[in-house]
Amino acid sequence: MLITFEGIDGAGKSTQVKKLEKYLVDNGREVLTLREPGGTVVAEKIRELLLESKHDITPMGELLLFSASRAELVQQVILPELEKSKVVILDRFFDSTTAYQGYGRGLDLNMLQKINDISTFGLQPDLTFFLDISPEDALIRKFSEKSLPLAFENNEMDRMESSGLSFYQRVREGYLKLAIAEKKRFVLFDACSDPDTIHAQITQKVNACSTPL
Amino acid sequence: MLITFEGIDGAGKSTQVKKLEKYLVDNGREVLTLREPGGTVVAEKIRELLLESKHDITPMGELLLFSASRAELVQQVILPELEKSKVVILDRFFDSTTAYQGYGRGLDLNMLQKINDISTFGLQPDLTFFLDISPEDALIRKFSEKSLPLAFENNEMDRMESSGLSFYQRVREGYLKLAIAEKKRFVLFDACSDPDTIHAQITQKVNACSTPL
Repeated sequence: MLITFEGIDGAGKSTQVKKLEKYLVDNGREVLTLREPGGTVVAEKIRELLLESKHDITPMGELLLFSASRAELVQQVILPELEKSKVVILDRFFDSTTAYQGYGRGLDLNMLQKINDISTFGLQPDLTFFLDISPEDALIRKFSEKSLPLAFENNEMDRMESSGLSFYQRVREGYLKLAIAEKKRFVLFDACSDPDTIHAQITQKVNACSTPL
Repeated sequence: MLITFEGIDGAGKSTQVKKLEKYLVDNGREVLTLREPGGTVVAEKIRELLLESKHDITPMGELLLFSASRAELVQQVILPELEKSKVVILDRFFDSTTAYQGYGRGLDLNMLQKINDISTFGLQPDLTFFLDISPEDALIRKFSEKSLPLAFENNEMDRMESSGLSFYQRVREGYLKLAIAEKKRFVLFDACSDPDTIHAQITQKVNACSTPL
């Protein structure tokens, strides 16, 4: 079973990822949690390169680097783990590419879909939990978390602040369009709701989708 | 005008690239010579990553990294230079991807063509000089050049030796198929001919294709 979490930075994805991971492990499931980009030796190097190069890189170069990292992760880790019946939880997957590089940076959506199909070898999540938040609320959350190590760990703070709110507005709208187009696997949450309430709804969806725990 | 050189390592591409560059500059042309992967800050980092990772990377990851480097180079350097009416000479371009990752490593050729179209923004060379040589002859040449700094500079020595001759045989056959399919822009040379004779034929083709020098 492949479960992905999506949403703009500050939506609370990592909190929900951790809660779900704990819930599944407590219920005897074997779980592997990963975050993109990264997760293999080569993919981690690509992650570093993306973080170092964020001010120099073109949107197309960025897209292809994310896709290279994804192809490595899917082929070397995700597909083998799914074959062993593990639950794989992903903090971001190809919907992030559609939302950020497509709706956010304006790359052609048909072209993006081709690249996404290629880099994932056609792999689709069983469930995608989309935590929806306005960029303004996300930024307020991020600022108030700024003292937390977590906010720095993923190095996305300065990126978010420099890209401007209008970029994140487009990304959010992209996610909302995806949630409508892919409603079979997308589950939308108001990211400003109580985290435990969101978590309870997530576990309900996961149980409905898998062998009962 | 965009001119590309193709062929397996040891075919003598860099010799011919240098001769052509000198000829064009001597005849008053503005010329920019580049080699793939690389050519921008980000693309050079991708080159390093490819060289470091050659034993760990999947064929798809390799393809997407080459393509990311290419997209950067095309958008940030090649297209702007062509617009200034410079002659751009490329030591390897997307035909290398088709020959190496497609025919050599066995990736799907239709998928490769999509990726090539995307990473080049549809840019096609005006002329592609393919220096054809058997892998055996290329290896003999490479070994005899082993003391030369050049053979080490591009770090491809050990790669060639470890991939095995059958891989290079498939790459060569791929190039030959491309030369037939793309005969409008491909010019095939026997790489074992005299370098000055090859050079003379190359300049003739270039002159026939461009405003007379």
